[in-house]
Amino acid sequence: MLQQRLPADQASVRRSNLSLVLRHLSENGARSRAVVAVETGLSKTTVTSLVGELQARGLVREIGPQHAGAVGRPGLALALDGSRVGALGLEVNVDYIAAFATDLAGRVLIDRRVTFDAMGSGVERSLGELAAVTRRAVTELGATGVTVAGITVAVPGLIDAHSGVVDVAPNLGWHRTPVAVRLTDAAPGVPIAVGNDANLAALAEYTSGVAAGTADLVYLTGEVGVGGGVISGGRLLEGADGFAGEMGHVMVDPSGERCGCGRIGCWETKVGLAALVRTVTPEHPYGLRDGVLRDPEERLAQIEQAIGDPLVDQAIATVGRWLGRGAATLVNLFNPRVIVFGGYFARLAGRLIPLAQAELERLAMAGSARRCTIVASGLGFGAASRGGAGTVVERILSDPTLIQIR
Amino acid sequence: MLQQRLPADQASVRRSNLSLVLRHLSENGARSRAVVAVETGLSKTTVTSLVGELQARGLVREIGPQHAGAVGRPGLALALDGSRVGALGLEVNVDYIAAFATDLAGRVLIDRRVTFDAMGSGVERSLGELAAVTRRAVTELGATGVTVAGITVAVPGLIDAHSGVVDVAPNLGWHRTPVAVRLTDAAPGVPIAVGNDANLAALAEYTSGVAAGTADLVYLTGEVGVGGGVISGGRLLEGADGFAGEMGHVMVDPSGERCGCGRIGCWETKVGLAALVRTVTPEHPYGLRDGVLRDPEERLAQIEQAIGDPLVDQAIATVGRWLGRGAATLVNLFNPRVIVFGGYFARLAGRLIPLAQAELERLAMAGSARRCTIVASGLGFGAASRGGAGTVVERILSDPTLIQIR
Repeated sequence: MLQQRLPADQASVRRSNLSLVLRHLSENGARSRAVVAVETGLSKTTVTSLVGELQARGLVREIGPQHAGAVGRPGLALALDGSRVGALGLEVNVDYIAAFATDLAGRVLIDRRVTFDAMGSGVERSLGELAAVTRRAVTELGATGVTVAGITVAVPGLIDAHSGVVDVAPNLGWHRTPVAVRLTDAAPGVPIAVGNDANLAALAEYTSGVAAGTADLVYLTGEVGVGGGVISGGRLLEGADGFAGEMGHVMVDPSGERCGCGRIGCWETKVGLAALVRTVTPEHPYGLRDGVLRDPEERLAQIEQAIGDPLVDQAIATVGRWLGRGAATLVNLFNPRVIVFGGYFARLAGRLIPLAQAELERLAMAGSARRCTIVASGLGFGAASRGGAGTVVERILSDPTLIQIR
Repeated sequence: MLQQRLPADQASVRRSNLSLVLRHLSENGARSRAVVAVETGLSKTTVTSLVGELQARGLVREIGPQHAGAVGRPGLALALDGSRVGALGLEVNVDYIAAFATDLAGRVLIDRRVTFDAMGSGVERSLGELAAVTRRAVTELGATGVTVAGITVAVPGLIDAHSGVVDVAPNLGWHRTPVAVRLTDAAPGVPIAVGNDANLAALAEYTSGVAAGTADLVYLTGEVGVGGGVISGGRLLEGADGFAGEMGHVMVDPSGERCGCGRIGCWETKVGLAALVRTVTPEHPYGLRDGVLRDPEERLAQIEQAIGDPLVDQAIATVGRWLGRGAATLVNLFNPRVIVFGGYFARLAGRLIPLAQAELERLAMAGSARRCTIVASGLGFGAASRGGAGTVVERILSDPTLIQIR
């Protein structure tokens, strides 16, 4: 099909109407052209033309006759297709790389996690491993007839979303790392975006987690670092540069300890996994080398096994109370209905949540705290890559012209 | 014109298309029906029908022939009208009541503030005075041919937006006060909404303040209490119950002083006007009676006159630094491009902002702080009532059927 040249205005109206029709089918299910026209207010001629283009892009297919109700004759029903369109999410974190892929309708095609010491390997080897994981996923999908339409990479750091450059990822030791550009060879011609891991995990919680559909939701992740993502009114809170929701370095105690970031009294110094390890073994900070936490998984397992030891129980309780104090700040500022604990907070949820919830209710402003519940994430470590795949689907629904006409 | 009975779906599509056309004219200026059809993707028949209804509602008028460009013949240009549609914002605060009214195109019709001791008068007399101000504004507008289409009342407290009930307004002494219901007699048949004063002031800053159009903006107001409102991605951040942005009671110092709210170390105890007055006159807390600040305007004037006195300068500097520390939290969580200081922070801006900006840059996460600037509000005390009027205009643009057919 010949690409029409339209004036800028008309091209953008066309794009937004393609999106309107595709999203309408995605959200409301199969229906005829006539019904789509009535329900969207677009003319029948316009709908017919839009549907033709969506079919040519492999995003919509006809599934047989459907009765249109009182307003029209029966017509061929249209449905979202996209079974040959793949959305790939990747995540690189301190000690693993994860990949998650779906088709446009959300069917899971890949869900995998490989252990990899990104912190110890340095930026070059980490980017090489990430490229290898990417190449393998693209090849696998291709072998089943699925073309990857977009990739989003989750990184625990501040990201310049426009350029796909990681500004800084302290726990990986990355600075000004051009992730998107460096992955181009592994997936030629595929648009690659980079996002903050906690923001993407928050999106995954919103679409498929324990509190899915909760329009005002805060996701908090406890790993070596503490990060977060905020869904407000059903949308990810991004801020001017995509840096919103950086909770770990909110100052909660001006007389507190020095944080890894150089500041005093960051929330991370109270509730991060390194803080817990330090409190549990004050005389001998096993697992800490040069102030950096090694083998966080193993340290966490040791702490779980030591539950019952008064020192350990007390340290966990202290973290729980400080979680509640910080959560009160989040409630005052974001007024969420749910706070989802991820990472190690989810692993120790039975101990942490009751104390955190009580402290939250004691400290948050009256109205909102009463109605905010802390829950543990059930998505596990795949959350950020799952969220990454979700943003690719969302981008296609917003602009179907990203998919080439076949 | 006979009201057509449409199925629920179709009625809602019709409403959203009326809004689409009205907003298109509001944002892009006068143009013909043919151009509106091309630019929105609606059919010409639909546009003609929608425009007819908007004319019947007094929201659109024809202003003469306009050439439609290459795509069509010249047609009569349509423009947003609404000169007979009034939007009224009201604000009740500790020591004044303000009223601000515009027509649909934003022309200012009323901008007034009356001194009133709402804190000392109690809820019944305050509601009576608010009703009197409302009645007077509605009568005045009516005398010039303007019908009030909606009212929004700004209150310094937590509001249940659905019911128009003030949950709690600590500095007014209001609890579970049904403001919207109580004003019904003063403006029969007019929809009345109630909102948080700082949220509405943030909206006013976004539409007409010193940083107008900045899509990521935090507004912070220093009065007896400290409040705030957040614009994120061009939208007011509301949270699940409209309680988002309650900055005054964010805990910043667990070893700090007890706040009026009963908690320890709230930001308000560091930067509120009462805290400044207390620090300036530690031996004799003039202006404080039973811990409550009387005549805040007069206290502020005294402090301004005493600038140069080392004790006063030091107290103001301390407030400036604590403003920067709290601002760093706001930057980490909301990543705004601008923080607007309102209330007494604006009055003392020359002293407060340099210190606050320096502390912000020292404490906020690298990426975002570099690009966040603190500025003083220029809107003065009318900001919240102006924002209230703005929300009424916005409601009409979103649902033109709120305006009765004449």
